[in-house]
Amino acid sequence: MEAMRLAEDECWDRLRRATNGVLSTVHADRGVDAVPCVFVVLRDRLVVPVDTVKPKASTRLQRLANLERDDRCVLVVDHYEDDWSALWWVRVHARGREATPTEEVVELLAARFAAYESYGAIATTIELTPTEVTGWSATRSG
Amino acid sequence: MEAMRLAEDECWDRLRRATNGVLSTVHADRGVDAVPCVFVVLRDRLVVPVDTVKPKASTRLQRLANLERDDRCVLVVDHYEDDWSALWWVRVHARGREATPTEEVVELLAARFAAYESYGAIATTIELTPTEVTGWSATRSG
Repeated sequence: MEAMRLAEDECWDRLRRATNGVLSTVHADRGVDAVPCVFVVLRDRLVVPVDTVKPKASTRLQRLANLERDDRCVLVVDHYEDDWSALWWVRVHARGREATPTEEVVELLAARFAAYESYGAIATTIELTPTEVTGWSATRSG
Repeated sequence: MEAMRLAEDECWDRLRRATNGVLSTVHADRGVDAVPCVFVVLRDRLVVPVDTVKPKASTRLQRLANLERDDRCVLVVDHYEDDWSALWWVRVHARGREATPTEEVVELLAARFAAYESYGAIATTIELTPTEVTGWSATRSG
C-alpha cells in the first residue's frame, strides 16, 4: 500500500463530510478520558454538541469538567473497513471550551442531525479551536 | 429512547466482536494523544498490534513512548449510525504496556485480520489490562 499523509485541506474536507468521532480529554486521576461524539465544522472550528437527546446522567458532563481544568483535547475521526486499503483517519489536536450555542450553531446542528430538529435538544456545546490537524490514508485515492 | 448502561459481560461480548477503536494515551506536552487501532481480546486483556503493514514513519511510535512514561490509557469502540436508536459504545480504561507478541497472539491476530497472515507483519504489541469497562446503548435491544 502506498500510504499518504493527508494535506491539511484534505483533512478539513473530510472533517466537513464526517459526522462523528472520539473526543479525548485530560483527566486529573485517570490521565485520559474519551467519549464518542458528533460534531459539525463551523469555519475554522469544530462544534461538539452536548445534547439532551442521548440520555445520560447529567448534562454537566465529565468532559466539560475536564476541559475546564485542562483545555487540551484531541478529536479523532476514524474510517475503518475490513479492506485496509480503504482506511483513513483525521486527527485534530485542539483547545476545547464550553460555548453557549448561537442560533447559527443550532441551525447547523439541526440541519445535520435529524434528532436535533426538536427545539431545546442542545444543552450546550464544546467549541474546539484546532492547534494541529493531521490525517492519514492507506491509499492515494482515499 | 430508553437508553441503558451495558452490563460488563455485554461490554466484553461487544469487544470480542469488535475489530477497531481509538486508543488515547497521556502525552507530556499535548495532554492527550489518540490514534485509531485494531485489537483482539485475549482472555481478560486486549491486544493492540503495532504492525508493519499500515506504513508509518517508524514502529517506535509515540503511543509506545507515551505508555512508557504513563501507562494510563483508554480504548473506545464506537458504533455510529445515522439512526441514533442504533448507537452504542464501549470504553475500556486500562494500563498499557509494550509486550512482545506470543505465538498465540500472532495466530489470533492473523486469524482476525487478513493482512496479518504475512509473516513478520506484527512488529510488537500493546497489551491493555483493563481497570474499568463501561458501555452504553441507545436501546435495550442493542
